[in-house]
Amino acid sequence: MRTEIVAIGTELLLGQITDTNSSWIGEQLALVGIDSHYQTKVGDNLDRIVGVLRQALDRSDAVICCGGLGPTQDDLTREALAAVMGVPLETDEAMEERILHMFMSRSRSMPTNNLRQAQRPVGASFIPEQPGTAPGLVCPVEWPDSDSTDGATVRKVIYAVPGVPWEMQEMVLGTVLADLERRAGITAVIRSRTLLTWGESESGLAERLADRIYALDASGNPTLAFLASGMEGLKVRITAKAPTAEEAEALLADEEARVRELLGPLVFGVDDDTMESVVLDLLRGRGLTLAVAESLTGGMVGSRLCDVPGASDVFRGGIVAYAPAVKFDLLDVPRGPVVSVEAATAMAAGVRRVVGADVGIAVTGVAGPGEQDARPPGTVCMAVCVGDPEAGGEVDAVEVRLPGRRRQVREFAVISLLGLLRRRLLEADRGA
Amino acid sequence: MRTEIVAIGTELLLGQITDTNSSWIGEQLALVGIDSHYQTKVGDNLDRIVGVLRQALDRSDAVICCGGLGPTQDDLTREALAAVMGVPLETDEAMEERILHMFMSRSRSMPTNNLRQAQRPVGASFIPEQPGTAPGLVCPVEWPDSDSTDGATVRKVIYAVPGVPWEMQEMVLGTVLADLERRAGITAVIRSRTLLTWGESESGLAERLADRIYALDASGNPTLAFLASGMEGLKVRITAKAPTAEEAEALLADEEARVRELLGPLVFGVDDDTMESVVLDLLRGRGLTLAVAESLTGGMVGSRLCDVPGASDVFRGGIVAYAPAVKFDLLDVPRGPVVSVEAATAMAAGVRRVVGADVGIAVTGVAGPGEQDARPPGTVCMAVCVGDPEAGGEVDAVEVRLPGRRRQVREFAVISLLGLLRRRLLEADRGA
Repeated sequence: MRTEIVAIGTELLLGQITDTNSSWIGEQLALVGIDSHYQTKVGDNLDRIVGVLRQALDRSDAVICCGGLGPTQDDLTREALAAVMGVPLETDEAMEERILHMFMSRSRSMPTNNLRQAQRPVGASFIPEQPGTAPGLVCPVEWPDSDSTDGATVRKVIYAVPGVPWEMQEMVLGTVLADLERRAGITAVIRSRTLLTWGESESGLAERLADRIYALDASGNPTLAFLASGMEGLKVRITAKAPTAEEAEALLADEEARVRELLGPLVFGVDDDTMESVVLDLLRGRGLTLAVAESLTGGMVGSRLCDVPGASDVFRGGIVAYAPAVKFDLLDVPRGPVVSVEAATAMAAGVRRVVGADVGIAVTGVAGPGEQDARPPGTVCMAVCVGDPEAGGEVDAVEVRLPGRRRQVREFAVISLLGLLRRRLLEADRGA
Repeated sequence: MRTEIVAIGTELLLGQITDTNSSWIGEQLALVGIDSHYQTKVGDNLDRIVGVLRQALDRSDAVICCGGLGPTQDDLTREALAAVMGVPLETDEAMEERILHMFMSRSRSMPTNNLRQAQRPVGASFIPEQPGTAPGLVCPVEWPDSDSTDGATVRKVIYAVPGVPWEMQEMVLGTVLADLERRAGITAVIRSRTLLTWGESESGLAERLADRIYALDASGNPTLAFLASGMEGLKVRITAKAPTAEEAEALLADEEARVRELLGPLVFGVDDDTMESVVLDLLRGRGLTLAVAESLTGGMVGSRLCDVPGASDVFRGGIVAYAPAVKFDLLDVPRGPVVSVEAATAMAAGVRRVVGADVGIAVTGVAGPGEQDARPPGTVCMAVCVGDPEAGGEVDAVEVRLPGRRRQVREFAVISLLGLLRRRLLEADRGA
């Protein structure tokens, strides 16, 4: 079942919008094991859209096209589909009602143009999911068989989904993938799970997992793959295939346990977790509150923690001590070089005390482009202070050298500091 | 001169990397007035790459292909070009020397594979810009004329550039665009400039500029276009065409002056400016230092200010007062509702005093998803305090209702606060 993707919209060609839909759909197809060899972008021009769809049908069994389903005269996907199918467009009265109702329920009057969205090529059906006003379409096509010389046809299909990413995603996940699998005769269920790691290089991870990957290569199911993800560490994706979802999930759970055994605390989360959500959960589970002192990151640690809904249970606040004098005056950092393990330690203890939290964490360093205190860009000192240091609390502090330019150094510093806090909390558990 | 873009790489089809190169090139082509009707992504498969390139030559005059120029066996663009051109590959000795020298100058030994990068199809020339090890190629092609029935050919061209964005961009800006313009017989120079605005809706801007746009429509040069840019306000792009760069720049300068006259202080910057760089420049020019108090943004205002190199001249630091108690205890906010204009005012005055800066700014509000103090998500209060309020300093404070979900509300709050500070500083100038 070869499937290709067509993204429709002049704004995509002009670079006013980057087409992320095709990448996302390509990833979903790969996850369920459906081949996809081409992705094409074409503008809002009927002849060119028709030409691209015809070519896609010539070389593939199914086509997913995104965009051009809106209400305006520029939205030509419905007309193009009718032309490719060789049928007229008809207005679906139930859909007309439905769209009218959507507008009424939002107390908005409906522009007449929107009724164009109730049209479909004769023979096409609507996709049940319809999160916006634009309905998606499933269009069966009898197409000349390229392997035949006697004019035989084969049954192919075009799916049309809107260009708005969340509308598109709901339709692809709800209808398109399952329909493709059914047509392809794929009865196996494919599931995947991604383990997030921090603190080890790709070659280091590969070494730890080498024997397991070798063993899996023999069976071919489940499989392990590495995914780099920039600032946020390396990911290990487990993919499993089984006759039922339950069996696939059981394979995943079993393999996850094996990988976690090999990688230990390097694995900090699964799927949609982030280092900040994981750290907040660890603190919440221990009934601890957090304060943050930041220099080169300028508030980015706090900002990322507050991205997580519910952060207020744990995160009390912090001090951005960008100028050295703010470190000395507000955080009682001893006068002297401010890019040092000593300064980071004083900042962590200071912010914990000043803000009134159980745990204080701090980061200071040189983001660049210039040096500071004769230390080169990328030099970063971090500290974690759990409990009052004058009453049995403990401080961990480290100096690291982070790669990249100003922005990368600052982003690496954020996740490095949160990663240090995570390790500290886990070690405290083991020490107890 | 119809040009199309081909992006090569299996990782693009699988969604492991989003193809942003095609969008960027599409935008550059549009800016110089070259038509581009198709963009195609294809995997690392020789037959399919050759097929896509042949089709592109059938329907366009020029093709820009990105990616597949690396040293590994997966990098097949050179082979595909040779096949399309119907010529063999040859090794260029000068290029071999150059690549070897690049490795030696970085004290690295060169994998033999990298010598593949010194190959080029016979008849192709290297692109002079070569920021990485991969050379780009200009490949002239004699191609069957689709309008001819007697087998005549026309001269077409394929440019091959690397998939690494900054390498690709240097080659496109340095060689490809100028070569395309020369082939297209474009002698005019096109230049553009983007004015960044904040504080007015798209329809409001359109209304202010309506007469001017109408007048320009008649002449067609320069032109004005609106670009939405999400969180960062609306942009007005001026594009001018002239026989020389100097004349084009003069047209831009003249038009910029007219637009600024119509939009007044709504225009906050030009091209690569950001609201934070603009605000830092305004403060620096006035010899003022800045402190920030943040609640719902959690440190994002400070973090964005520190993204700008040289921020330390102006930005001293801040207090992230996420928990109400931190507002009361550290910033002397009166006990009571913390999402209020009064709380924002106290925070701005408090952080100015505590951190020791000339100007204090503050933001508090409800990011969502839940309510706070019975105020709905999106309610945001901001304040700007210039000088000591007890010694003639002034405080501006406003309450606004921002759209979107948690992340959007927080991001809108950041630029809204910086925008308020900017307006305050400009008004102070006019008041003086």
